[in-house]
Amino acid sequence: MITKDLGKRLQELRKEKTGLSQEKFAFKIEMDRTYYASVEAGRRNISIINIKKIADGLGISLSELFEGL
Amino acid sequence: MITKDLGKRLQELRKEKTGLSQEKFAFKIEMDRTYYASVEAGRRNISIINIKKIADGLGISLSELFEGL
Repeated sequence: MITKDLGKRLQELRKEKTGLSQEKFAFKIEMDRTYYASVEAGRRNISIINIKKIADGLGISLSELFEGL
Repeated sequence: MITKDLGKRLQELRKEKTGLSQEKFAFKIEMDRTYYASVEAGRRNISIINIKKIADGLGISLSELFEGL
């Protein structure tokens, strides 16, 4: 399922690109930390505006964010 | 704005990859045609499940869908 696959990919990218915890990364991008945690867990049908916010926080393009999915 | 940029990109891709009208493409992917039209117009904060449905209908990866955005 795309929400699960995206969650796993975001977790990988967060660790690789930022080295931050979920909580610190969520704080950095001004997103509620429990919401962000549920996105990584694949439990949210996240919308494009929030996906873009995460890509910006990771410092990558949307195309790179979705690579391999 | 990402919703506008995505809408323009989807319009381009629909024409290039399918040659279908908005209405025929929406029918093909089983999406309400007025909803799909508003996505191309950049008026919807579309979610990942619907973006994936569109990518599948275009026959491309999410990474390709977001190229250049």
